[in-house]
This record gives sequence, structure tokens and C-alpha cells, in this order.
Amino acid sequence: MWGDVPVAATILSGTDLSAEIRAEVAAGVVEIREKHGVTPGLAVILVGDDPASAVYVNNKQRACEQAGLYSDSARLPGSATEKEILAAVHAFNEDPRVHGILVQLPLPDGVEQHRIIEAIDPDKDVDGIHPYNLGKLLQGRPDFAPCTPAGIVELLMRNGHDPTGANAVICGRSDIVGKPLAALLMQRGRGGNATVTVCHTRTRNLAEVTRAADILVAAIGRPEAITADMVKDGAVVIDVGINRVDDPSARRGYRLKGDVEFESVSQKASAITPVPGGVGPMTIAMLLVNTLTAARISIHGRHHSG
Amino acid sequence: MWGDVPVAATILSGTDLSAEIRAEVAAGVVEIREKHGVTPGLAVILVGDDPASAVYVNNKQRACEQAGLYSDSARLPGSATEKEILAAVHAFNEDPRVHGILVQLPLPDGVEQHRIIEAIDPDKDVDGIHPYNLGKLLQGRPDFAPCTPAGIVELLMRNGHDPTGANAVICGRSDIVGKPLAALLMQRGRGGNATVTVCHTRTRNLAEVTRAADILVAAIGRPEAITADMVKDGAVVIDVGINRVDDPSARRGYRLKGDVEFESVSQKASAITPVPGGVGPMTIAMLLVNTLTAARISIHGRHHSG
Repeated sequence: MWGDVPVAATILSGTDLSAEIRAEVAAGVVEIREKHGVTPGLAVILVGDDPASAVYVNNKQRACEQAGLYSDSARLPGSATEKEILAAVHAFNEDPRVHGILVQLPLPDGVEQHRIIEAIDPDKDVDGIHPYNLGKLLQGRPDFAPCTPAGIVELLMRNGHDPTGANAVICGRSDIVGKPLAALLMQRGRGGNATVTVCHTRTRNLAEVTRAADILVAAIGRPEAITADMVKDGAVVIDVGINRVDDPSARRGYRLKGDVEFESVSQKASAITPVPGGVGPMTIAMLLVNTLTAARISIHGRHHSG
Repeated sequence: MWGDVPVAATILSGTDLSAEIRAEVAAGVVEIREKHGVTPGLAVILVGDDPASAVYVNNKQRACEQAGLYSDSARLPGSATEKEILAAVHAFNEDPRVHGILVQLPLPDGVEQHRIIEAIDPDKDVDGIHPYNLGKLLQGRPDFAPCTPAGIVELLMRNGHDPTGANAVICGRSDIVGKPLAALLMQRGRGGNATVTVCHTRTRNLAEVTRAADILVAAIGRPEAITADMVKDGAVVIDVGINRVDDPSARRGYRLKGDVEFESVSQKASAITPVPGGVGPMTIAMLLVNTLTAARISIHGRHHSG
């Protein structure tokens, strides 16, 4: 039914924009290699055999290689102890070929995730999730913004949706999306200056809050939680959700759904990200950007001002 | 005129509550001394001869001594170099009598403030402004929340204004008040769970946003910027501003004014903090609480979970 109605909103393609950014990274890699004889490198640590995590890690490594980055990984069994995971982190901290380290989350139950993350050299924390980097982000002087929030800001800015002065409403308060995105959007400077509201499970009258949004970001983790009645006419809608919904008619037995009811919301929004092909590819692109930044930091040091 | 109208709102006295909290700290100090033979200690670093800063530092030291804490200070001339200030920080980092270090801000022009703050041992950062501690705050697992935001949360909680489910609107996005307070109020857990909005100079229709606030926090730095028409009936209003306004009739030639037009707003609000005697005393009380926490961390270590 909905499929027959023409889509009103501009589609914000993360697939297209991420290709553009990855090409910029590839050019930056060549420049650093020529100027400094350094090939930026990313190492990924994967613990356990969750199939989805393995797919993510493979995608990240392939993206690295396509952009000309050095790529390494450590794959540990699900039975790995905290000590063994820490040893893998320390090895990459010391490895001069590796400028960025990513620990694929979630880690198996029983592993103290914060302890692992805090063991990463903050100068190699290309996921931007070490408390030191999150703190610099809150201060408005990030070196590494977490990849998904950074990707959302690029999607907005490069499509002409400067958040300055806009009411930005973020649904979800996770450590890797909602909270760091709020920190980015409220800062002075490029990609910031929005009036930012963060909603979550304890928010009363959620629809009332979301209807005031010029920019609405859904990072809830529930398929199609945002419906058309919750969206203002002309809003820009960013869908961070990737939910598997059973569908016996699909080849794999499921379909991917975002947190936004795309068919109806795209009739009201002025712009909207699809799922898949929206925020997802941007996350990987920003990981490569952060790895390039890490390589530059290893050469020139951090900015301490700002 | 307004002075003749009876005040409707409950006054949230920071003077009273801070006395209560300081008594709790004093009891904690006795306990730590008896159990562990340790007297919690705070060191303050003051650079230059700004009279207001000198008053703040003296107040902090007196509050320490009244609560039974060890107190030390380093007072450097305004001409001190970055290297000299760093040396003072390092000396207190190494001093086992000192569990908390506070650098009185602002530092003189030309000193790279971030470099000084990042030199503080994060385990002694009782102001909660080291990026590592701000990052843990954003993750919802702070050891040291910045003192003014922490004081605001205590003022709310201990007066029966649990933020859970409330619309909390914060006017101001500074590193020491607006942004860390947003981080506190949006977390899961005690003192959090509010739907948080951060406003600032680039916010459009400020009055419309503030009128939706159940809890309204003014941290703007402009006298009486929040007027009654900007406040919802029954709102809880927290005034962080301390502005000197010229008044020839006053003994000192000025009066202290908050960021809120008290006389009119107190007719609409259900509760409001006075200026002075509201948030200000809470800031010092929370500094003592954080120093006690730092002493406990020096004995037991940090929590790494949460």
C-alpha cells in the first residue's frame, strides 16, 4: 500500500556519502605515506563468535584495505579471559604499525568492558569511547568523536542541514550514540549549535517532544518505534536503528528495519535516512577518518587548545 | 512593588542544605581517620591576585578546616609561567596528604588551561573537570561530578524534586555547569532520568523552550535574563548566576543578582533558589564531598564497573 505512494522526503544516502568520504581518506593515506613514510593502520579485536560481530569486523577490515590502510586483527575465543583480551590491547598499543584500535562490542558476559576500553591508548582510541576522549568531546574539543554520532553530523552538514539553531531531539541515551551525539550537536562550532533534547524510556509525552524536532534522531533499538504522528512536517529524520524483523518471505528469514516507520514518516519529513544504507555506512567511513586522525596525531601530537 | 507581593514559591536554601552536607562530610572525615588513619586533604592552587578568586579560595579552605579536612594551598603570582603552575600541580599529585586538587579558574591569559587541568591526577580531580572524569560522567559512572552540577542535583533530590520523567531545561552550555549538568540529569539512576534540553545563545524561541520546563536551570551569566513570562506555573527554578549589578545605594556599590528575575519568577515557580544562598554554597559542599571520595579512592581504588 504505502509502497504505491510517492516518497516525499529527500533520501539521505549514507552509502553515497560514505563512498565520498572513503575516497577522501584514501587520498589522505597517500599524502601521509608520501610526506611521512607512514601508512595509517587499524587493528580490530574480536572476542567470541557472534556472527553479526564477525560480519561487522570483516566489513571494517575490507573498508580499511580499500582505502589503503594497514589492517590487522586479533580474534580471540569467547572463552578468553580479561587478561588475555588486555594482552591483545597492550600488544596493539605498542605496535607502531597500528594507529587505531577498535574493540568490537559487546564483549562476552563476565568481561569488564570498561576495563578493556580504558586499557586502549587514548591516542589510538578511534572509536572515541575511552572516557578521556568522551570528556574532550563534552568539552567541545574532540580528537576522536564516536563514529556513529560523527557520521550523523557529516550526513547533516554535507546535505545542507546545519544544526545551528535547530531543535534537535535524540531518542536514546546510549554511550555510543545518544549521549555523544548530544554532546556534538550542542557545541559551539561546525556541526553544533543545536538546541538539543535527549529522550529515553523515562520520557513522558514522547510524541509531544519529538513533534517539536527540526532534526529527529532515532536510536532506540525498537523497529518502527517512530511513527508519522510523532514527526513534524518538514523534519529531517535520522534513523540509527538496525533491527532484524522476522519475515518468512525474505531469503534470510528476516528483514532489516530501522527505528522509524519509513513508509509513513518519509511522507512528512523533508529528508530521511534509509535503513540499510543510511547511518550504517557512515559509521565505517568515520572509523577510517578517525584512523587517519590517529596517524596524524602519532606524527604531530594532539591539539591541546580549543 | 514586587517586594510587597507575598512570595509563592518554596525557597530552596543552599545555605541550609550545604550545612547539612558539610556535617555529613565532617562525620565521614572522623570515620576515615579512625578506620584508616587518614585525614582527607584538599589543596587549592591560586594564580594571580583576582580579588574574587582569592575570596573563593579562602572560603573553600575555611570550609575544609571546619569539616576537619587537611587544607593546603599554593599561591602563585599572575606572572607565573605554565611550567611553574605545572610544577605546583605535580607537587600536589605526589603529596600523600593531599587527596583532592583544585585549580581556581580562570587562569591568567596566556596559560593553556586545558594543559594544567589535564596534569592533575584524575584520582585527585575533585572539581571533576579532567576529561577522563567528564567522560565517566557522560557514561553515567562518575567518581567526581563537577561541584556545581552535583550540588544542583542534591538540591533537587533532597527537596523532593526527583528529576525522573521531568522536562529539565538548562540554559547555558559551559564546561563546568551546563554540559556536565545535562550529562547528570539524563542518566539512568538517582538524580537522573530527566528529559534534558540544553539551550544557549543560538537557541531560537528561548521562551517557548523554557516554558516547557518542569525544572528550569539558568546558567547564563546575565542578570535577570529569565523573566516570569519564560516560566511555567509550578516549575522548579534553579538559578546558577552570580552577577554583580551596580547599586550606589549598596554598601559595596553593587548587589548580587542571579540569572533569574527572582521577584516575578518566584510568584510562578513552585520552588526557587535564592541568590546568594542557593547554588553557591552547594558548590563548596560538593567540593568537600568529592574530597572525601578522593580519600576513599586513595584507600580502596576506583569503581571500574557501573
